[in-house]
Amino acid sequence: MSAEARLHELGIELPPVAPPLGTYVRAVRAGNLLLLAGHGPWQGDRPAFVGKVGRDFTVEDGAQAARLVGLGLLASTRAALGSLDRVKRVVKVLGMVNAVDGFGDQPKVINGCSDLLVEVFGQAGRHARSAVGMGSLPGGIAVEIEMIVEIKDDAPAASGTRSAAGGASRRAAKSGKPPAGRAAAGTRRAGRSARKGRSH
Amino acid sequence: MSAEARLHELGIELPPVAPPLGTYVRAVRAGNLLLLAGHGPWQGDRPAFVGKVGRDFTVEDGAQAARLVGLGLLASTRAALGSLDRVKRVVKVLGMVNAVDGFGDQPKVINGCSDLLVEVFGQAGRHARSAVGMGSLPGGIAVEIEMIVEIKDDAPAASGTRSAAGGASRRAAKSGKPPAGRAAAGTRRAGRSARKGRSH
Amino acid sequence: MSAEARLHELGIELPPVAPPLGTYVRAVRAGNLLLLAGHGPWQGDRPAFVGKVGRDFTVEDGAQAARLVGLGLLASTRAALGSLDRVKRVVKVLGMVNAVDGFGDQPKVINGCSDLLVEVFGQAGRHARSAVGMGSLPGGIAVEIEMIVEIKDDAPAASGTRSAAGGASRRAAKSGKPPAGRAAAGTRRAGRSARKGRSH
Repeated sequence: MSAEARLHELGIELPPVAPPLGTYVRAVRAGNLLLLAGHGPWQGDRPAFVGKVGRDFTVEDGAQAARLVGLGLLASTRAALGSLDRVKRVVKVLGMVNAVDGFGDQPKVINGCSDLLVEVFGQAGRHARSAVGMGSLPGGIAVEIEMIVEIKDDAPAASGTRSAAGGASRRAAKSGKPPAGRAAAGTRRAGRSARKGRSH
Repeated sequence: MSAEARLHELGIELPPVAPPLGTYVRAVRAGNLLLLAGHGPWQGDRPAFVGKVGRDFTVEDGAQAARLVGLGLLASTRAALGSLDRVKRVVKVLGMVNAVDGFGDQPKVINGCSDLLVEVFGQAGRHARSAVGMGSLPGGIAVEIEMIVEIKDDAPAASGTRSAAGGASRRAAKSGKPPAGRAAAGTRRAGRSARKGRSH
Repeated sequence: MSAEARLHELGIELPPVAPPLGTYVRAVRAGNLLLLAGHGPWQGDRPAFVGKVGRDFTVEDGAQAARLVGLGLLASTRAALGSLDRVKRVVKVLGMVNAVDGFGDQPKVINGCSDLLVEVFGQAGRHARSAVGMGSLPGGIAVEIEMIVEIKDDAPAASGTRSAAGGASRRAAKSGKPPAGRAAAGTRRAGRSARKGRSH
């Protein structure tokens, strides 16, 4: 089952991608990798979990926050690629927990995001991960997570979702022809989507 | 001298790769990169250094912990690739030290891992690095390190260790033929090895 | 306008790349990616901002420190590639602020670096980013930043700046010919430049 179909089956609706907070973007493609900015637990236009895990939030709260972050990461991934079905594999997650000194359950907190990724992508959602404790996070959010995904190579260049950074331009360079106009349009679209993101 | 031969010459035996702690894996390949999860200083089935550097451990203790983490990273790399001789270059290390506030010797601690990588891989072991201080780490471990390595492109596709994410499928796409069955088997094997990992 | 021309127009002179502090390097190329080590706010041969943001430094001080780190990252990028004009895109920034517990303005601090990258590279300088708060950093520096850039694929192999890890060797492998000698020289030069770096 495709990731988009699975998302529908699970009854999950992705949140809108929030407006930008600065001179950066929510996702950048380089070759077949999509690197996502650190995302926080936003609900609508404000952070839903502000405080420290181990003091203001339980581990279970933290896992809920991490799941919310995961939904935002999926929303940004879809905005950048056009569809989650273009994800080949979730490669790497760096999960950062705003935790009290001596906290040790970062893995249980970040599982809230990791489990979501496996629910949606199945085996392709299984990723390498670090889950660590930070002294502080932007605006006091409880969790921030960044992610790297690998993009499928099988979409036709005319789909409008292939970045000029990707295979289309390399193949074009090889054949001596410029990339198709639609590919360039895809790049612009991805850029526009990404600029809508709210990252830290 | 090859990395495996050098390891043998140094009399270093890599630890077994520990069982998984959650919905993630110890290493994921994307193209010619292998991204390793954050590893801790495990000895057998438990963490060997639990506590803060600068309070419970000296800098020298920390460097020993980092070397132990490095051995685990090498074990996971070998499990994912079949042999350390398939490593082209250690690209990047993020070394995270569970340290007291105001600690400043993160580089000396993480050298315990970096020096091991150079001992084993020589010049190819020299990597870009960040060494930083964390507020807390999983289970209170003293050090957590994640790593990115570049994989050699010269192994034949039939070696059974090449991921479908790698050069084999790209070459196959170019030639219009599907990747060899052995390449797909390699993917499965890498997945199985990686699932055995204990990461954070 | 090219990045080097823009730098000249802005009247920005990049600092010298400082000597190494250990068994690591300032930048490593893998394929078309250049991964830069964590850089600190060095001025000449010593760190210019030592202390915690939110206690010893204001947010504005922190942004200045981050801009200084950005200059060092640009210097290391130029040293590794020969020219900033070989940068295709700034892909990813991880900005780490040595901050007091409860600090929340990491994004404003790291903007000091992000804004510089956009000044110099324009749209190509817009990157995915995480900005987070650390418990401690090497030598007590206020800010440490690591960066990933994508390298342009259009330079001729004979330019002497292309790593054997990059397109030259792949193209050579495809054509059945070894990479040009100059490409190998480029690798050596990049290695030498990188070894001059001071990273954490």
